[in-house]
Amino acid sequence: MKICKVVGSVWATKKDVKLEGAKLMIVMPLYGSQGDPLIAADYVGAGIGERVLVITGSTARFVSAKEGAPIDASIVGIVDSIEIAENEKENFSEVDL
Amino acid sequence: MKICKVVGSVWATKKDVKLEGAKLMIVMPLYGSQGDPLIAADYVGAGIGERVLVITGSTARFVSAKEGAPIDASIVGIVDSIEIAENEKENFSEVDL
Amino acid sequence: MKICKVVGSVWATKKDVKLEGAKLMIVMPLYGSQGDPLIAADYVGAGIGERVLVITGSTARFVSAKEGAPIDASIVGIVDSIEIAENEKENFSEVDL
Amino acid sequence: MKICKVVGSVWATKKDVKLEGAKLMIVMPLYGSQGDPLIAADYVGAGIGERVLVITGSTARFVSAKEGAPIDASIVGIVDSIEIAENEKENFSEVDL
Amino acid sequence: MKICKVVGSVWATKKDVKLEGAKLMIVMPLYGSQGDPLIAADYVGAGIGERVLVITGSTARFVSAKEGAPIDASIVGIVDSIEIAENEKENFSEVDL
Repeated sequence: MKICKVVGSVWATKKDVKLEGAKLMIVMPLYGSQGDPLIAADYVGAGIGERVLVITGSTARFVSAKEGAPIDASIVGIVDSIEIAENEKENFSEVDL
Repeated sequence: MKICKVVGSVWATKKDVKLEGAKLMIVMPLYGSQGDPLIAADYVGAGIGERVLVITGSTARFVSAKEGAPIDASIVGIVDSIEIAENEKENFSEVDL
Repeated sequence: MKICKVVGSVWATKKDVKLEGAKLMIVMPLYGSQGDPLIAADYVGAGIGERVLVITGSTARFVSAKEGAPIDASIVGIVDSIEIAENEKENFSEVDL
Repeated sequence: MKICKVVGSVWATKKDVKLEGAKLMIVMPLYGSQGDPLIAADYVGAGIGERVLVITGSTARFVSAKEGAPIDASIVGIVDSIEIAENEKENFSEVDL
Repeated sequence: MKICKVVGSVWATKKDVKLEGAKLMIVMPLYGSQGDPLIAADYVGAGIGERVLVITGSTARFVSAKEGAPIDASIVGIVDSIEIAENEKENFSEVDL
């Protein structure tokens, strides 16, 4: 699971029928070197600019809202807060987004 | 899920019987550092040069058109449009393809 | 499976219903180049600063405590000790956390 | 799925009983930065030097010849030909093997 | 599947009940850039310094000895020998361990 920021959306009319109704958001990982953007299906009503929890891999198909869709990344939560131990803060810098 | 560009095709006569009829396309990721090409099975009729949605991992076997094929990357949509929030555009540059 | 250090926690009120009650910890891999932080669900009562065993991918859903949650990284053990063969120690340096 | 070149073989007498009879080949990815070698089980009769299609992850267990073996990479085809669109050729250079 | 070298062991008293009895070894990949260490469950009686075959991902749960344990990397064989085609040897150098 990664903490990401929602930066945009993508639309596709011609797609797998099991993707009908899926809200596809573009997210950027906020920590570490994983700077690569991902397309994640949103199931919790996330908006542009929000910090979200994103799961990847087969687990992305096991979200409550829509089990079994051909999705390999899902937004499963909207971050309220993050708490880092005082002596760890220097190793845990947010990517400059 | 990644946004990729279709750049070519690959043919293999001698292959797993469950791959018979699979249309194998070569795709290049368009964003971030994931420059590595992938071979993805196309189930939505994508053409060379088109921007497509590609899923990877076990989920690639769960596409409607052909469940259970020994495929680990599938094209599941053709991109109509992408919308990036104004203040995020600088972090979301398209790879120079 | 990776050896990681627990460095913090993350809270999300709005989330997948199957994540209710999940204790989400921020962990940093301790060895090799995998410096990227992960959010892992804790099922063994790990605390900040502890060295833990973290599994990733679909296997993270197969922990005894809570099978089937939409989780792709889980803490499955708290490290007591690590033993490295004398002549291998130089190749196995702990990341400076 | 990746296009790889078969560069060698590996033998192991002491192994998981479900690996009995598996032909384990060493393959090198031919395109992009994925220079890392892989051990893949061969199910299509590939030989040294041949260009092959390799799938990785759980899907590698879903090949027709031997479902369920503890394998995470399988050779599922022998490449006949590759066609790259004229204007994409510069981005799709073969690794110097 | 990767060829790795066993370099140590890790112990954890407080762990998932399904990990009871699992022999957790520290292994280092021997080829390519995958220098990152892994913790793999050993099911074939591997010892320190031995070259072993390691599978990762969900497949690691499908070993004969203990199906379904929350493991994402398993040792499934002990390497007898490796044969690399003469003209490929320069691309297949062993990591300096």
